[in-house]
Amino acid sequence: MKSANLYSTPDDAETAFYDAIERGDLEAMMATWAEDEDIVCIQPNGQRLAGHAAVRESWRHVFENATRLHVRVSHAIRWSSALMAVHNVLETLYIGDDPTPHGPMLATNVFVRGANGWRLLSHHASTASEPPAEPPSGNHPPRVLH
Amino acid sequence: MKSANLYSTPDDAETAFYDAIERGDLEAMMATWAEDEDIVCIQPNGQRLAGHAAVRESWRHVFENATRLHVRVSHAIRWSSALMAVHNVLETLYIGDDPTPHGPMLATNVFVRGANGWRLLSHHASTASEPPAEPPSGNHPPRVLH
Repeated sequence: MKSANLYSTPDDAETAFYDAIERGDLEAMMATWAEDEDIVCIQPNGQRLAGHAAVRESWRHVFENATRLHVRVSHAIRWSSALMAVHNVLETLYIGDDPTPHGPMLATNVFVRGANGWRLLSHHASTASEPPAEPPSGNHPPRVLH
Repeated sequence: MKSANLYSTPDDAETAFYDAIERGDLEAMMATWAEDEDIVCIQPNGQRLAGHAAVRESWRHVFENATRLHVRVSHAIRWSSALMAVHNVLETLYIGDDPTPHGPMLATNVFVRGANGWRLLSHHASTASEPPAEPPSGNHPPRVLH
């Protein structure tokens, strides 16, 4: 059954997405996605998953095969309009109790606002060559598009 | 001087972007980007460029160092709203006269509608592990978000 969690901002939906990864909670993860039939998830291995069944199966596989994951998100550049929002972020991955950061990865997260608030429409993650040159935060308030 | 080309749809802006790559035309390339100061371009090498100066410098480098490039775009999944649109596509790269396809790559292209029509706000490209399982086209009409 679909969760009724309501994310009132794209940031809330994004936080819920990364929290679900940290908890390895597949139902919570899938509840952060929009009901659009064509949701897209591109994993860092270069696979594109389209549609709820394929996206769910991919994350099920991730959660079954990984020890606890924690993703630290930084360097966000964000745009939002009435119905859609896009966040471009740097992901730093921590695996289990290993304090060594993995990645970094770059992600473009697209959110859509629907009857149940903001949810994820597309997540594109890929390996970063190095952290971006810009400072990690604070200098990029979300840009509101009119 | 900024080009006054007006792209009346996200598709038009996307076509102009890939045409500019094919022609190695830096001015035409930069004219497809929005005037937003935080435009983001993630190249397949994992570098994130933010802002017009960094994006221009990156494409100048690409065009100076490559023979003719042709990008074939397929497997598009597209969403649009009044102000923003997102296209997720498969890019197949042809270099010079070599008929062998390179890549494939996956790209998430984000467009914004402004006074000069639709322009690119963010381009995230990364290596694909293999072509997506879905058929290349025809089955994914653009989804209009309300």
